[in-house]
Amino acid sequence: MNFEFYNPTRLVFGAGKLSQLGEITAQYGKKALIVTGGGSVKKNGVFDRAVTSLKTAGIDYAECSGVEPNPRITSVARGAETARAEKCDVIIAIGGGSTMDASKVIAAAVLYDGNPWNLIAHGQENWVIPTQALPVITVPTLAATGSEMNCGAVISNDETKVKSFVQAECLYPKVAIVDPELTTTVPKDQTAYGVCDIITHVTEGYFTGIDGTPIQDRWAEGIIINAIEYGRKAVADGQDIEARTQVQWASIVALNGWVQAGVNMMPPVHMIEHALSAHHNITHGAGLAIINPAYMRFIARTRPERLAQFATRIFGILTAGKDEMTVAMEGIDAYEAFLKSIGCPTRLSEVGIDDELFEQYAEDAVLVVRDAEGNLPGRPALSKDDIVAVLKSAL
Amino acid sequence: MNFEFYNPTRLVFGAGKLSQLGEITAQYGKKALIVTGGGSVKKNGVFDRAVTSLKTAGIDYAECSGVEPNPRITSVARGAETARAEKCDVIIAIGGGSTMDASKVIAAAVLYDGNPWNLIAHGQENWVIPTQALPVITVPTLAATGSEMNCGAVISNDETKVKSFVQAECLYPKVAIVDPELTTTVPKDQTAYGVCDIITHVTEGYFTGIDGTPIQDRWAEGIIINAIEYGRKAVADGQDIEARTQVQWASIVALNGWVQAGVNMMPPVHMIEHALSAHHNITHGAGLAIINPAYMRFIARTRPERLAQFATRIFGILTAGKDEMTVAMEGIDAYEAFLKSIGCPTRLSEVGIDDELFEQYAEDAVLVVRDAEGNLPGRPALSKDDIVAVLKSAL
Repeated sequence: MNFEFYNPTRLVFGAGKLSQLGEITAQYGKKALIVTGGGSVKKNGVFDRAVTSLKTAGIDYAECSGVEPNPRITSVARGAETARAEKCDVIIAIGGGSTMDASKVIAAAVLYDGNPWNLIAHGQENWVIPTQALPVITVPTLAATGSEMNCGAVISNDETKVKSFVQAECLYPKVAIVDPELTTTVPKDQTAYGVCDIITHVTEGYFTGIDGTPIQDRWAEGIIINAIEYGRKAVADGQDIEARTQVQWASIVALNGWVQAGVNMMPPVHMIEHALSAHHNITHGAGLAIINPAYMRFIARTRPERLAQFATRIFGILTAGKDEMTVAMEGIDAYEAFLKSIGCPTRLSEVGIDDELFEQYAEDAVLVVRDAEGNLPGRPALSKDDIVAVLKSAL
Repeated sequence: MNFEFYNPTRLVFGAGKLSQLGEITAQYGKKALIVTGGGSVKKNGVFDRAVTSLKTAGIDYAECSGVEPNPRITSVARGAETARAEKCDVIIAIGGGSTMDASKVIAAAVLYDGNPWNLIAHGQENWVIPTQALPVITVPTLAATGSEMNCGAVISNDETKVKSFVQAECLYPKVAIVDPELTTTVPKDQTAYGVCDIITHVTEGYFTGIDGTPIQDRWAEGIIINAIEYGRKAVADGQDIEARTQVQWASIVALNGWVQAGVNMMPPVHMIEHALSAHHNITHGAGLAIINPAYMRFIARTRPERLAQFATRIFGILTAGKDEMTVAMEGIDAYEAFLKSIGCPTRLSEVGIDDELFEQYAEDAVLVVRDAEGNLPGRPALSKDDIVAVLKSAL
């Protein structure tokens, strides 16, 4: 293990914590840009409660609403323009991963003179890693992306159909106010997709990381076991605050860097999914539910022992009298069965995607992150043909 | 769960990282106070390598050597005086927990005009929580206390025989440079005591924390399982760099707040041990090896199910046909057997402590942290009589 770890985000966690938004924001600025998504936070009263808390603390605000799922760089540009025009000095994200991701990049774009896409164009021409940003406060209303307590953001370019990402220390939120009560109104399907996103964040590192990280293995397994147990409960009863709390906590720790520390994670499943959702209007977590089991079956060919560990430790698959590949496949079947049980699609046909653009998805998947041979990094690295094979097996 | 989490220490982890000390220090100051312990870092060449790295980066330095095990407030005062006189602007701790703890409090004492003991006198008269400190860089040479990446310090007052602690955000090290190679020369006994310290940091939260933290439970278990496996290997062969690496990593995560987040940990075993080592010259980890099994047997009377979980998940104790208490006791026996196998004492008689001062230790144990009834907080809280009972069972 050879790594650096740094995460200075202050986490304020617990039911009812939204009421502290004003006093917390007052430590960072006087006028906030509140960034929101499709409008659910206005319907369910969260926005009004946030504004009340801000007003009580003497914080003025402007708005950037309507950030779409798979947030677009055009929304980032719009938000940055508003923040500049309104002289906002702090950005508050109230919403899901899209809203939080857009907010982080808005915070950097406000202080960047060029085309904001340059901040996202990972590995491409004109790529610029942001070094400064306005302070960001995240208030997640969905347990899924883990964006609340990390320095990453995924943004889509609608013109070029490229979905890329940025990671930069200046994008760590100053504070994440994580109030599980805010997730009780999330519908069943989005709850399930969120659970799938959480688990996939963990499996990415678990399957692509270096050998010799036994503590992180146990942690990863601990998150997955509980995301399954409480994810099932949260889908069954959205008002189950205990289940919502555990899923929310799982969301944070699945991608705040703790479980990945020293692991050298690669995100192949995310890269393939991003290629899909750049071309089709599917929810990220639903795309992951389709790609992840297919990916696991593909890599099990060369790493059955790793998949067998997943099977035994997560699902308690018995090993007596079986070879590793059998155990591995039973574990993947159990995972796919779980995904189906909470209502996730696990086949491309279920979301209306056929094989017409498979070559294009494979091209796109290696556009953002690729090794010297042009393959998608992982264990093993995937060639474009491998990616097509994974996609075919998910039809 | 209802909590705040914040840990801004940058962790630089890996074999050979000591060589980056100079360039890292240069980001925080121009003249360092290097704090060291009994002199082993001078004998084994670590000090010279550190100084070479600093010189290459143009960093001048002064020294505060000879910080004792169970570090004393007089050493803190001496270090602060040197730092002021030499106009040091950054503190570098090279050593074990004592050195790192003393360094943190030196960093605060430099900027504090009063008696430095006020910064430590937790809950006592004249107690002042530090709000500013010079930047601290920790370079641990022993895997044990976890002090490298947290904001706590334990300091003893030789005059009053009180051992107390401080926790304050300004004491988070700016950087922890954790180089497992530096621990390969630690002798077997200190290696074993360190492993015991690591495990006890985790069991404190595991046994005193709130219900409903299933993810943290799995993490705690993951650390303990691996501290046992790799601790055994590190004691058997000090040059086993893989074992040293895992134990070093376990040390960090056992007390950097990750596994305790939301748990509301109380430290009863540490409080009882501190009372012992304030009166007797025993290594902290050795004291913990004696107190922790006795403490576990005491609390198993009221929480057999929790100890049974420990037994089954850590040691794989079989449950069929047994009641919870039997399972619990088999787990504690297995833990005590492990401690013995790596050479730790598990009875007071082994370190020459008899029952003469038991009442005094009980008084001292509740001096620093106590609930409204004057008991030692935990599950259950321990009265002074309970503490004496725990001590008696450890004779």
